[in-house]
Amino acid sequence: MKIAVLPGDGIGTEIVAEAVKVLNALDLKLEMETALVGGCAYEAHGHPLPEATLKLAKEADAVLFGAVGDWKYDKLERQFRPEQAILGLRKNLGLFANFRPAICYEQLVGASSLKPELIAGLDILIIRELTGDIYFGQPRGRRIATDGHFPGAEEAFDTMRYSRPEIERIAHVAFQAAQKRNKRVTSVDKNNVLETSQLWKDVMVEVGQQYPDVELDHMLVDNAAMQLVKAPKKFDVLVTGNMFGDILSDEASMLTGSIGMLPSASLNSSNQGLYEPSHGSAPDIAGKGIANPLATILSAAMMLRFSLNQEVAAQRIEAAVKKVLEQGLRTADIYSEGTTRVSTIEMGAAVVKAL
Amino acid sequence: MKIAVLPGDGIGTEIVAEAVKVLNALDLKLEMETALVGGCAYEAHGHPLPEATLKLAKEADAVLFGAVGDWKYDKLERQFRPEQAILGLRKNLGLFANFRPAICYEQLVGASSLKPELIAGLDILIIRELTGDIYFGQPRGRRIATDGHFPGAEEAFDTMRYSRPEIERIAHVAFQAAQKRNKRVTSVDKNNVLETSQLWKDVMVEVGQQYPDVELDHMLVDNAAMQLVKAPKKFDVLVTGNMFGDILSDEASMLTGSIGMLPSASLNSSNQGLYEPSHGSAPDIAGKGIANPLATILSAAMMLRFSLNQEVAAQRIEAAVKKVLEQGLRTADIYSEGTTRVSTIEMGAAVVKAL
Ligand SMILES: CC(C)[C@H](C(=O)O)[C@@H](O)C(=O)O
Ligand SMILES: CC(C)[C@H](C(=O)O)[C@@H](O)C(=O)O
Repeated sequence: MKIAVLPGDGIGTEIVAEAVKVLNALDLKLEMETALVGGCAYEAHGHPLPEATLKLAKEADAVLFGAVGDWKYDKLERQFRPEQAILGLRKNLGLFANFRPAICYEQLVGASSLKPELIAGLDILIIRELTGDIYFGQPRGRRIATDGHFPGAEEAFDTMRYSRPEIERIAHVAFQAAQKRNKRVTSVDKNNVLETSQLWKDVMVEVGQQYPDVELDHMLVDNAAMQLVKAPKKFDVLVTGNMFGDILSDEASMLTGSIGMLPSASLNSSNQGLYEPSHGSAPDIAGKGIANPLATILSAAMMLRFSLNQEVAAQRIEAAVKKVLEQGLRTADIYSEGTTRVSTIEMGAAVVKAL
Repeated sequence: MKIAVLPGDGIGTEIVAEAVKVLNALDLKLEMETALVGGCAYEAHGHPLPEATLKLAKEADAVLFGAVGDWKYDKLERQFRPEQAILGLRKNLGLFANFRPAICYEQLVGASSLKPELIAGLDILIIRELTGDIYFGQPRGRRIATDGHFPGAEEAFDTMRYSRPEIERIAHVAFQAAQKRNKRVTSVDKNNVLETSQLWKDVMVEVGQQYPDVELDHMLVDNAAMQLVKAPKKFDVLVTGNMFGDILSDEASMLTGSIGMLPSASLNSSNQGLYEPSHGSAPDIAGKGIANPLATILSAAMMLRFSLNQEVAAQRIEAAVKKVLEQGLRTADIYSEGTTRVSTIEMGAAVVKAL
């Protein structure tokens, strides 16, 4: 079982190091190879996703990813910016199914912006399509407008698009995930405005007929953004396109108040996957040894479950994380009075010990 | 001064009736004419935005709008659905600038999903571009894909686009609004992925140079969705495109916990405007006499301010609304123990009395 380890920028190296320690402690004969990705790869090789890194990722069974990005790359041409690495990996590996659980841990209810009763026990799964939509749709670019409000003016444009089979495959992922949970799927779109959304909704309905045990409903994206705030616990599985999923999954993870705890998985049709924390590279706290490694450690657990077929080991990690929370250990981002503040390394070590 | 009154569907008629009473009580010599719009217009005339209604709206100085939509129209072809009326009005009247304040009233802090300290005193203004973007961009439709992941498959597509002058004019609106407030503009886009967003950001920076007294910053839409939850009070004016604005303005208004209080204005370049509550038609409570008319009444105040040049009258309405809240009067949606529950009509009457 081969894992490509891509720590990336900012706190990426620190948090991935702890996840690697946890994986090593499991004695699973994992082959891990590390490579540069993101801003550090650009600095070393002139590209955020160097050929060698992409090759390593393609050949691996799974990619353990830290985070990429830093303000200092903001002025680079878009193609060289760190986040192009993550888009390139998604595209080249065909990672169309993104799993983003938004879970509120019992011990961390207080960290949420939301009132405890609204958020305690939250456990929703956002499934975001990840290789289609306006993210990759051609044509796109700049041109002189020939119609619209200002013909003759410079304009920029992008294309939102989804084909039927693209929607079908993510629909199956969502319904099957719901079967293992509370058997409810909420499909989010903007069918009152967008052609793409109308096809999305039509296909969701069609595929849903193959899953009579799962209840399907539909919600407009603006309403979904509201309902996540108003009554997040009403959701079970929320499935949506790449663009809306980007926004809603971030909103949902922030609702929990502990985005430092939330893992994610991005899978292709052969269950090859990329696993990364839901949070970003946090350049402001990089190198200080205070970042929370738990989202990355939990991403490693998802990796064992989805790509490496090691359910037992995955559960061991998840149980260990629960245990350290029960022990009252907290990194700075989730610290509250009466708990014990620990460093990134101490948190990693505590998880290893709790395994 | 001529006002087109378009109550629409659901609770629309009930709440607009109260706003009209308030306007009448001001003795301003307003000429008001009512017409059908939305589902009721479709039923009566076969179209959600009948010619006569559009003509009335075009000739008026302002449109006072209730709400449109009902589940029962969900199965209609898109062009006949109620919400097409609102899109048609925006397009035909050129209402490119949408103002959506998200304000948390002191007396209603408890109604928010958010903890009181995060939301008390919230006063942000979302300015959403309303006639461009993927809402209206051509081409759009269905076709057989010739490239992408599944060439040969059926696909649907839409075009996101913004021209430089479209962005410029909304930028000016945002900077000028900020000058009257706390002098900060946050421009929200997705420039790390979208060409349209890159032009958006570039133009915001350019126009911003004409407003050296206003501080401009930029935020990615996914991050904005998070920051609204985490620290909403950090925003002053948030300006964004039509699609992102749809999502973020609804998220922001739900954060306040009292969307039944939030007005909106949509203006064109001659200050002709459409004024409507931020909430929808709520067909589930229509006809029960319990809907909150305050968002519509406050929309009427915005109408007096922006389109009819009646600042003093606008402030009278706003002061009257404050007063009824202080008196402890509450419709069901904002009721809490210790306050007095009133009906739609009672609330309207109380505002008239407080004028
Ligand atoms: C970095 C960026 C391109 C990316 C996205 O928009 O998909 C990120 O926000 C995410 O959600 O993983
Ligand atoms: C009804 C719908 C087309 C509309 C929109 O998406 O703009 C609504 O959600 C709004 O925000 O006014």
